[in-house]
Amino acid sequence: MTTRLQQALAETSAKVETALAAILPLHDGPEARLFAAMRYAALGGGKRLRPFLVLQGARMFLVNEARALRAACAVEMVHCYSLVHDDLPAMDDDDLRRGRPTVHRQFDEATAILAGDALLTGAFGVLADPLTHADASVRAELVLALAEAAGADGMVGGQMIDLEAERQALDLGAITRLQRMKTGALIGFAAVAGAILGKAPQPQRDALRGYAHGLGLAFQMTDDLLDVEGTEAETGKRTGKDAARGKATFVSLLGADRARAQASLLAEQAAAHLDLFGEKADLLRDLARWVIERRA
Amino acid sequence: MTTRLQQALAETSAKVETALAAILPLHDGPEARLFAAMRYAALGGGKRLRPFLVLQGARMFLVNEARALRAACAVEMVHCYSLVHDDLPAMDDDDLRRGRPTVHRQFDEATAILAGDALLTGAFGVLADPLTHADASVRAELVLALAEAAGADGMVGGQMIDLEAERQALDLGAITRLQRMKTGALIGFAAVAGAILGKAPQPQRDALRGYAHGLGLAFQMTDDLLDVEGTEAETGKRTGKDAARGKATFVSLLGADRARAQASLLAEQAAAHLDLFGEKADLLRDLARWVIERRA
Repeated sequence: MTTRLQQALAETSAKVETALAAILPLHDGPEARLFAAMRYAALGGGKRLRPFLVLQGARMFLVNEARALRAACAVEMVHCYSLVHDDLPAMDDDDLRRGRPTVHRQFDEATAILAGDALLTGAFGVLADPLTHADASVRAELVLALAEAAGADGMVGGQMIDLEAERQALDLGAITRLQRMKTGALIGFAAVAGAILGKAPQPQRDALRGYAHGLGLAFQMTDDLLDVEGTEAETGKRTGKDAARGKATFVSLLGADRARAQASLLAEQAAAHLDLFGEKADLLRDLARWVIERRA
Repeated sequence: MTTRLQQALAETSAKVETALAAILPLHDGPEARLFAAMRYAALGGGKRLRPFLVLQGARMFLVNEARALRAACAVEMVHCYSLVHDDLPAMDDDDLRRGRPTVHRQFDEATAILAGDALLTGAFGVLADPLTHADASVRAELVLALAEAAGADGMVGGQMIDLEAERQALDLGAITRLQRMKTGALIGFAAVAGAILGKAPQPQRDALRGYAHGLGLAFQMTDDLLDVEGTEAETGKRTGKDAARGKATFVSLLGADRARAQASLLAEQAAAHLDLFGEKADLLRDLARWVIERRA
């Protein structure tokens, strides 16, 4: 990882942590457990990849950073809710996430379900709030785009297909579609959110979508490789899961070497979409390279 | 129930059914199961009380009915998602809802969790879509109000307190707050959504909020009474649940007679908030009376 990317990611993490902590205050009363679980799920970890995409995109269109940070938090809340629900016993049944017990292990299943629900709901509230943008058409557009990315035709639909993949064999085309929905859609929203905030013209939005498409697939292929080749100590989560369940992945279908080569190609293609932004997009280029080199 | 209320509720049900079926199309492919579960959860039943409130409110402010119907569907999608998640084994563990197997019994737990997530997400997409209102500030206001009503400070927070009520004894004040959050907040949003769509002035919004407050609590007290006095055949769901779990309810704290009297008073207070609307609010008055007389 380049030093400047490392620094920028660390800065983003710190800002997102502070902003999320303010958006998700501690509460007293009998509902305190819910707020504690929401904070546990959203604070103190994660690569903050999606917020980084939001902030970098916003920077290119000179968007006020406080506003961009709110959109970044909304995306991260949706990402964190999806992890909480995906980790549930009825879904992937994971005990470990980011090196800590998952929310349902730390609290209980009911609290985990509700914390996820509340994070998802809260994300839309954050986007629709006038604090996020003075222009209501921008806020409504953000909400609509996030709903499309996160819903049945996007992330949730992808997770459904992922569960079905344990029962029926999916081919490479189906796995690619699955991943575009499950992780690609939200990454795509994160990449374009800054352009929405900055009312950027369509070609620039398309370029960022194209970047996100390659980035997301390259990220997922690397995830599949890490699930096979990584260790729990490195990744902070259980590895070898997919093979244990007999699930088709990019690696099981392509083999590790071809999956690595494909991820590399996708990362290059992602970076090529950034040409029209010149050096303003250097950090996004660094990110595309890091995504396939990472060990966690 | 008055004949005109019965007719109006039946008309609302038919319209909402058609509109929801269009918003939630069947899908092919490996995610078909998700869409089937969403339709199973949202179609074919329910009193459609919340959509009725939206449509009645919208009618008073001369809102285009097709638009109001979209807002009505969004509220109902949130209501249905909350039932799906509340019925899960980790929560209330219910097998029966509206006389049919609950979603996790009909499909499976993972599908039920995802179907709920997708209904919730989709509701915000419906509100943010330009089809719901030409003015983006109205759409953004609807999204924000729904997020507040449905989130951690509203419905989800109320459900968290409801679960905690099985572990700790709540007094009447705490139960009232619980119900205001768990059911009152979304009913309040439904009652005021038409006024938001119609850009109605604040006093009229306040009146509708006041109406919804009394209506929601009266509704819940009657629910508690039906849980004690109703039969499964009448209500289409398991009864006697609260007592079996030793949970405090309005009935356990006040006794059936005082709870009935209190519900009656709340329904009267609710109706009194409608004075400024004249006879345009007659159906809402009928509803307030029916809410305490119903047997299901």
